[in-house]
Amino acid sequence: MITSTTDPQPADFADVRATNLAVVLRFVREHAPCSRADIAASTGLNKATVSSLVADLIDRRLVRETGLTENRVGRPATMLVLDGSPYAAIGVEINVDYVTAVAVDLSGRRLLSWRRSFPGATSAPGQAVAAVAALVRRVTNRMAKEERQVLGVTVGVPGLVGIDGTVRIAPNLGWRDADLCGDLAKALRDPGFPVQVDNDANLAALAEHRFGPQAGTANLVYLTGEIGVGAGVILDGRLRRGGQGFGGEIGHIQLDPLGAECRCGRRGCLEAVAGIGAVLEHAELSPAEVESELDEVARLARAGDPRTLAVLESVGRGLGKGVALAANLLNPEVVILGGYYVPLAPWLLPAVEAEVRGRTIAPDAGGCRVVASTLGYDAAALGGAARVLDSVDSGRLPRIS
Amino acid sequence: MITSTTDPQPADFADVRATNLAVVLRFVREHAPCSRADIAASTGLNKATVSSLVADLIDRRLVRETGLTENRVGRPATMLVLDGSPYAAIGVEINVDYVTAVAVDLSGRRLLSWRRSFPGATSAPGQAVAAVAALVRRVTNRMAKEERQVLGVTVGVPGLVGIDGTVRIAPNLGWRDADLCGDLAKALRDPGFPVQVDNDANLAALAEHRFGPQAGTANLVYLTGEIGVGAGVILDGRLRRGGQGFGGEIGHIQLDPLGAECRCGRRGCLEAVAGIGAVLEHAELSPAEVESELDEVARLARAGDPRTLAVLESVGRGLGKGVALAANLLNPEVVILGGYYVPLAPWLLPAVEAEVRGRTIAPDAGGCRVVASTLGYDAAALGGAARVLDSVDSGRLPRIS
Repeated sequence: MITSTTDPQPADFADVRATNLAVVLRFVREHAPCSRADIAASTGLNKATVSSLVADLIDRRLVRETGLTENRVGRPATMLVLDGSPYAAIGVEINVDYVTAVAVDLSGRRLLSWRRSFPGATSAPGQAVAAVAALVRRVTNRMAKEERQVLGVTVGVPGLVGIDGTVRIAPNLGWRDADLCGDLAKALRDPGFPVQVDNDANLAALAEHRFGPQAGTANLVYLTGEIGVGAGVILDGRLRRGGQGFGGEIGHIQLDPLGAECRCGRRGCLEAVAGIGAVLEHAELSPAEVESELDEVARLARAGDPRTLAVLESVGRGLGKGVALAANLLNPEVVILGGYYVPLAPWLLPAVEAEVRGRTIAPDAGGCRVVASTLGYDAAALGGAARVLDSVDSGRLPRIS
Repeated sequence: MITSTTDPQPADFADVRATNLAVVLRFVREHAPCSRADIAASTGLNKATVSSLVADLIDRRLVRETGLTENRVGRPATMLVLDGSPYAAIGVEINVDYVTAVAVDLSGRRLLSWRRSFPGATSAPGQAVAAVAALVRRVTNRMAKEERQVLGVTVGVPGLVGIDGTVRIAPNLGWRDADLCGDLAKALRDPGFPVQVDNDANLAALAEHRFGPQAGTANLVYLTGEIGVGAGVILDGRLRRGGQGFGGEIGHIQLDPLGAECRCGRRGCLEAVAGIGAVLEHAELSPAEVESELDEVARLARAGDPRTLAVLESVGRGLGKGVALAANLLNPEVVILGGYYVPLAPWLLPAVEAEVRGRTIAPDAGGCRVVASTLGYDAAALGGAARVLDSVDSGRLPRIS
């Protein structure tokens, strides 16, 4: 019954069996194929307990026997692997111009990936709730047809999200104090699975931590390269949100008191100096236009256009200052540049890396690497699904249906 | 057997009994006086297991029966409280001009607090090892006379300390790549207790988290206000060191590209803009002189001297930028100003708070308060002792002597 809680409270001591089920499930996820004896030897749980827990996980169709036997001395053992095929975890992202939904099974296999255009910047929270609820209903209908039970939905939003799921401020959506989580649960009419809301950068960091090439890296920072810039901070293997859930707001840290004016009203913020707006010099584009503009920027850079290369170097240097700040304060193994930074990474990264090395006090930047994300534009939605799977791993198992 | 590990590895599953002993010990620490039945009810462990674990803890003299009974219906229960009187945890701090040692018992009661002058700035690591070893031997002799078993020693150093206890860089001591931990263990000739080395700000944060008025705050940042400025970062109840242990280096984050030159060779670092050197305008003083100079600064400020007040306001604003940076990225409940900032806090805090409110994107600075430390100049040494107690809490129990 090892839990992942860091600050034990009386409640954490409760429900030993559920916690032990989660321990066994995590062990199978990490070490499959493995035998019941392997689990007992590594967890310290006795064999009878392990057998009973495995039987329960098989009943829930979270684990299955492969029939394979391990090639070792002694009696051959039945090997166990993760099942989870009758389940789906759903992630949704609301952004300035679109809504994205993805669904994955328990092993993380992608079941669907949908994008719908949606005027986020000009819609009230209520309209977003209606649009997301409609999309989620279509996804859950599809999952029902495939005879999958939905484990949960997490919705990512570009803004400050409190730990209760309230969107406090979403500047690019124009929202304030919207109870997105409560309203969405109401719109879905008691869906029978948990609904959660989170910051988009937090979710993208979870997606990288579970599914990306850096998966499992204990200390990882993800930077969203959208019109806004936010960070998702994973330290010691867990997302760190801070006291009210508002951590990761790197975009409005001032890099230069004399820098460009920011849309937040301050001056020289990372977002103003090194956001995508600084590349395009006019930030009021819709994402479709941003994508085609960035294609043009990349084309010019490839062709060696001096002005384009100078702009990208300057933005890269600003971004490097922001990354160095995270490297000094948090000493992550890797900082991942996401979103619109990805197509520009070949030109941004040299300047970013030079700044990070020059500005981090630890030798060799404390081992911090900077890489471009490979998860694409639905990283945040994928992270929504990852958060649902994290809940399962930490002991919130689906009921037997 | 709940552990505090966040990233389960096979090793975490091992040694169920040791982990369960630590769970019961933590429960007694947090809920004493409590009965065996209380422990069983709250931990989910069965009563026979709890009785056996408690017997073991009583044998180790970590827990004792009070003889009191709880005022409730039914059979009166024997109540348990923390004992730990036969133990001592030792913390040491090496600084520019002194070495400090403190010892506490298992409940955190201060047993001794010694300070010795030591020319840290002009001593090689080998001399420091000899001086610290001599001091630790004197402390352990005293503890032996009191019939206390030493649980461990942690030594704090103002510099980058790798997770293996190697001091990579200690700028104010002039050290590089010193294996302080290994050399100290050798100098103490297999002392029979663990020896650890850590960054001074990390340890001060642990001291605040365990012993300070903010004890138990899940998200807490401590800023050392010495000649150098470093941070100790506690998130979700645990110190976060980053991948190589070099996190918390807030002192060399650039606040202003045009700011004062820093001793690190860069420009406009937090340490240059808002370190104690910026108050005194000449940083080469010895700590004894710093203390008397700061008394004079405080006297002038109390007398309303306009130039002094302007300097303190300017330093407070710089410091506020640094705190805002931590507030945006980490969203702590509290930032604690330590060291030499403490006597100047009445004049620094208003400017710090104004900057933090103005520069943090979350409403109301995300709930982040800024306070002055009350633990005094031996916060880091006290934190060294706290780290030893943390080891016990996480399952490294003393052997029965």
